[in-house]
Amino acid sequence: MRVGIIGGSGYVGGELLRLLLHHPQTEVALVTSEKHAGEYVHAVHPNLRGLTHLKFTQYHLSKVEKNCDLVFTALPHGASVKIVPELLKAGLKVIDMSADFRLKNPESYLKWYGWNHPVPELLMEAVYGLPELHREEIREAKLVACPGCMATATILPLMPLIKSSLIDLDRIIVDVKVGSSGAGAAPSAASHHPERSGGTRPYKPTDHRHIPEIEQELSLVAKKPVRVAFTPHAVNMVRGILATVHAFLAREITMKDVWMAYRLTYENEAFIRFLRYKKGLYQYPDPKIVVGSNFCDIGFEVDSRVNRLVVFSAIDNLMKGAAGQAVHCLNIMLGINEKTGLEHPGFHPV
Amino acid sequence: MRVGIIGGSGYVGGELLRLLLHHPQTEVALVTSEKHAGEYVHAVHPNLRGLTHLKFTQYHLSKVEKNCDLVFTALPHGASVKIVPELLKAGLKVIDMSADFRLKNPESYLKWYGWNHPVPELLMEAVYGLPELHREEIREAKLVACPGCMATATILPLMPLIKSSLIDLDRIIVDVKVGSSGAGAAPSAASHHPERSGGTRPYKPTDHRHIPEIEQELSLVAKKPVRVAFTPHAVNMVRGILATVHAFLAREITMKDVWMAYRLTYENEAFIRFLRYKKGLYQYPDPKIVVGSNFCDIGFEVDSRVNRLVVFSAIDNLMKGAAGQAVHCLNIMLGINEKTGLEHPGFHPV
Amino acid sequence: MRVGIIGGSGYVGGELLRLLLHHPQTEVALVTSEKHAGEYVHAVHPNLRGLTHLKFTQYHLSKVEKNCDLVFTALPHGASVKIVPELLKAGLKVIDMSADFRLKNPESYLKWYGWNHPVPELLMEAVYGLPELHREEIREAKLVACPGCMATATILPLMPLIKSSLIDLDRIIVDVKVGSSGAGAAPSAASHHPERSGGTRPYKPTDHRHIPEIEQELSLVAKKPVRVAFTPHAVNMVRGILATVHAFLAREITMKDVWMAYRLTYENEAFIRFLRYKKGLYQYPDPKIVVGSNFCDIGFEVDSRVNRLVVFSAIDNLMKGAAGQAVHCLNIMLGINEKTGLEHPGFHPV
Amino acid sequence: MRVGIIGGSGYVGGELLRLLLHHPQTEVALVTSEKHAGEYVHAVHPNLRGLTHLKFTQYHLSKVEKNCDLVFTALPHGASVKIVPELLKAGLKVIDMSADFRLKNPESYLKWYGWNHPVPELLMEAVYGLPELHREEIREAKLVACPGCMATATILPLMPLIKSSLIDLDRIIVDVKVGSSGAGAAPSAASHHPERSGGTRPYKPTDHRHIPEIEQELSLVAKKPVRVAFTPHAVNMVRGILATVHAFLAREITMKDVWMAYRLTYENEAFIRFLRYKKGLYQYPDPKIVVGSNFCDIGFEVDSRVNRLVVFSAIDNLMKGAAGQAVHCLNIMLGINEKTGLEHPGFHPV
Repeated sequence: MRVGIIGGSGYVGGELLRLLLHHPQTEVALVTSEKHAGEYVHAVHPNLRGLTHLKFTQYHLSKVEKNCDLVFTALPHGASVKIVPELLKAGLKVIDMSADFRLKNPESYLKWYGWNHPVPELLMEAVYGLPELHREEIREAKLVACPGCMATATILPLMPLIKSSLIDLDRIIVDVKVGSSGAGAAPSAASHHPERSGGTRPYKPTDHRHIPEIEQELSLVAKKPVRVAFTPHAVNMVRGILATVHAFLAREITMKDVWMAYRLTYENEAFIRFLRYKKGLYQYPDPKIVVGSNFCDIGFEVDSRVNRLVVFSAIDNLMKGAAGQAVHCLNIMLGINEKTGLEHPGFHPV
Repeated sequence: MRVGIIGGSGYVGGELLRLLLHHPQTEVALVTSEKHAGEYVHAVHPNLRGLTHLKFTQYHLSKVEKNCDLVFTALPHGASVKIVPELLKAGLKVIDMSADFRLKNPESYLKWYGWNHPVPELLMEAVYGLPELHREEIREAKLVACPGCMATATILPLMPLIKSSLIDLDRIIVDVKVGSSGAGAAPSAASHHPERSGGTRPYKPTDHRHIPEIEQELSLVAKKPVRVAFTPHAVNMVRGILATVHAFLAREITMKDVWMAYRLTYENEAFIRFLRYKKGLYQYPDPKIVVGSNFCDIGFEVDSRVNRLVVFSAIDNLMKGAAGQAVHCLNIMLGINEKTGLEHPGFHPV
Repeated sequence: MRVGIIGGSGYVGGELLRLLLHHPQTEVALVTSEKHAGEYVHAVHPNLRGLTHLKFTQYHLSKVEKNCDLVFTALPHGASVKIVPELLKAGLKVIDMSADFRLKNPESYLKWYGWNHPVPELLMEAVYGLPELHREEIREAKLVACPGCMATATILPLMPLIKSSLIDLDRIIVDVKVGSSGAGAAPSAASHHPERSGGTRPYKPTDHRHIPEIEQELSLVAKKPVRVAFTPHAVNMVRGILATVHAFLAREITMKDVWMAYRLTYENEAFIRFLRYKKGLYQYPDPKIVVGSNFCDIGFEVDSRVNRLVVFSAIDNLMKGAAGQAVHCLNIMLGINEKTGLEHPGFHPV
Repeated sequence: MRVGIIGGSGYVGGELLRLLLHHPQTEVALVTSEKHAGEYVHAVHPNLRGLTHLKFTQYHLSKVEKNCDLVFTALPHGASVKIVPELLKAGLKVIDMSADFRLKNPESYLKWYGWNHPVPELLMEAVYGLPELHREEIREAKLVACPGCMATATILPLMPLIKSSLIDLDRIIVDVKVGSSGAGAAPSAASHHPERSGGTRPYKPTDHRHIPEIEQELSLVAKKPVRVAFTPHAVNMVRGILATVHAFLAREITMKDVWMAYRLTYENEAFIRFLRYKKGLYQYPDPKIVVGSNFCDIGFEVDSRVNRLVVFSAIDNLMKGAAGQAVHCLNIMLGINEKTGLEHPGFHPV
């Protein structure tokens, strides 16, 4: 399949390239960047040096239409929505990495992003690209809206607990720790090395933009409104997200009940790993262990002393939280083995 | 005042030395280390090179008795309890950095630490060395039990909220992020650089040993039993603790109510700083900013959408969480300006 | 081919497993560890969780003999030499990761390692496993002695310069910066996170043990004795080595002369990448860019103002500096495409 | 003394504030920032929260003239030269942190900085503010040009060797490792956390701008032209510089000869520390140990095998490499104890 990457100079674009250049079923036909048009992609993504002679080009619809069957749009929020409609109209399938098509309720865009959605009719057509929840719809989708990285890390551990009615839906706390690559490739004061290195900095402790998609999807699972109290922290790592979910128990439960809930939902999932083996240093999820892989590691403890369940999920924000998840969706759309091009584990130590 | 440090080769011992060597009212009479006896302290604490010619000596009661008026015991848990009784009997005042005298209920030692307390009668005599809570008792104390670092970071933000009855006492979540120096100077797999660097690793997600002292002190404040759900995470920093407290509201409140609660309790405290100024990168506490100082930075947001209050407190685990707090106690015992020897801010950036 | 890993619980063992489990021509028949025998390998190498059900076993010659055609020995220096002779005698091919068979002169072991080599006759039989220098001998080898990681990073940039007589052989400076994984998986004071994080610490500034193999191989190239002044520094990274070679010019040269020297030697090498493109942030080698890959990145500048050539080479110490290089040797021995199982680039950013 | 800081929002400005607010002989009368005028200094320098109510003001000559006796100019290169003349004319003493007055030869500015120096007559009047070399001139100076951070780390270890004619002046290699704060507070691609963290990146491997001041000062010492081959590397630390000097021996020497050379020059210097004690982890200089202090730590080895001397010097780039050195100069100008306000050691670990 001939694929294109629209907006390929960011970190997600780089990961898409890394994955797609080795994917046996795809040929990268073009990769665009307005800023770097004419430059070798390896000048921007130096790990790809020697592996490709591709250069960035400017975006032209006609060129994309002619050379691609499917495109990944890896543009900033608010920019995707401007070109996705024309790509769809041209008959291309689109896997969009931005937030522009994740929310079903058009009003949510005004509320959480500050702008009116220009093509609200596309919101119902778009499929929220979390394979573990929407596999069948992804298979037939024309437009996939890839989940936010922190949303992925939050929904995956919570979905089975909600399905199995194990937790109190009114008091869900999600305390997230996130690496610096999550904020993108553009330099900023918040990601300036002297400021970011060695610190642990809360940001957007209420009203983070990933909340509406988390609540939308979990409410779908619960079949009633679910609210989450969500607070992220910028920590001193480059890649990775650890979501610590603190939930209060809806009833008396044991570790076994929780394992059963997880197994029930994820038994056949290729990219969910459970941490049950009580040996070694990594008995709970740590994003360090999934860096570069598409895995979501999940582990937990029942804290019956205080009637709490604490669950940890770890992902690589650029992989399971973005490019890896997008390729997973692609595999589903292609009807091939879902692991294709995503088999590789992370490095240890890294 | 002639002071001694018993067990001075660890990180807390090093900080005590750094502070006491510049303290205008103390003379460091001796510093012991069984392992490094005979060596210069600067071989172990290289930042002190050129500032002192002290050498480590072996511990001998008679020598301590003869040369010191007060001692800091910076020994591992379970080791302090073996020598503190004889130090007290010899008429010395003791500021103990271990957990051995923090808990009032002797049975708690069996439950949380796994051993029977050999001198339970000293537990009621010992004063829990948190100046913001026990200033008057510290003034007259013969034995001060310095709080645990994570306990300090947890009690300080919670105490005023409990005093002012702002939060639901049954659902307090404390999600802690802690630097590697908190685990001490002895190499271990968990603190091995290749394993610790760049990761975010939950550990002891339930039943951490700092819980009983936290609950003891908060119950004292609440005048009824308080329980906290407590989970620490090892993050990629050397010094510092960030405690994120997620609490549900007991009633409808505003930001102003919370500020008033904090001001009421901490208005005249020298080492509590509030973060209210909404400019700049550090609008919430970040341990990076207090590294090397004795400050506890506190900030928060009311998340009325989900009926939650989220509070952040940041301390340097070796300072406000250990050596700085101990010197603060010393200053109170000496009846001098509480800031003496502790005026210096942290470095930025660091 | 059925392969075994003797001593598979260290970092090099983990990388060998990661590579060999995905290698199309190998089946990992066994992996030994005296310390972890009976445990799942993923308890020690958590990135492999879900990818293998292998367990560590104890070393028994008969078992190895029966189940393997070739073994990788990833044991500490001085331990390999005790079992390699019996493995060879049993008809197995051996790729040894230790220093025990790298030096040709038996006396060098006494001088640099402090022990008499027990089987000096094997030293001449062993092939120094640097494919770029000894490809033909590796093809036929029964015993391959994989180069040291810092030796690899030093020999590769120097070899072409010496071949082409561009530099003064009496004044070669090699200033190395190395990540913490290079010191292995065993905790130590030097690799304790609080001590290693954020520092830059020289160690063994003279007489480092990689010097004799560097000088042995470069002298072979020069056909006369070469000496290098070699000083490593422990820096705050987990993986990677940057070798900065400062050499004085033997005659007046231009950038083009240097490029020609490198091209002449490495034109067809799969794992040497040159940095000539003067765009982007990474115009010189940085180990960060090769993490997890088998590449050696090389770049340089002629500093005619001071008659100097400065060359940089970057490798991943566990890959091109150990496990990757070993698999490269394996591919040569198998007569298959040298890139097999080693095609993947590093991650960026990481 | 009433002092002002012109350009106080950068990292050097922050350190000057930290030092001067606690300095017993100075009163900070004003601190300017065009960008942050009107804001509290603690919004930009969060470590100073609670310690000062100062706000940034805009620069007005009349205000500075009226309120200050001496000013520190902490402006970018090329900006200082525009205001220093008017400050001097107004009768103020100036300690300038930029490069604008460091070089004696006006032509060097065109060559190394790309602009013609507008007030070349001030260059001979300015004193290069390295106390260990120019103490007497600093005492009487009206304009002190503070040395560059990497120049300080390079000149200090080399000066005594040159004085004592121990090394070959034609083959001096300086291989520098520098933290990210050295590049200043403005975000950039090179200092973006995802790019800088965990890497070791050479930059400006030839022709770095600190070279002319290094050669100027060392030639002064040698009384003949000295050239240095100089290459810096950006490493994963925030503060600190390690300079590794590789020099070839002019004659056969012992460790003792080198110690004598150092003692001869630095015996009475307050901020030079020697590392001779062969115990503990830090037997050679590591910038980690001097973070926050004004010390320059020096250590070395004679590598007679290759006729080389390798010397290490470690400083905090913002302290001995900038603000600390400036306050040291101030103390000399004031005729007070040179250590005033600079007594504090660094933290360990940090």
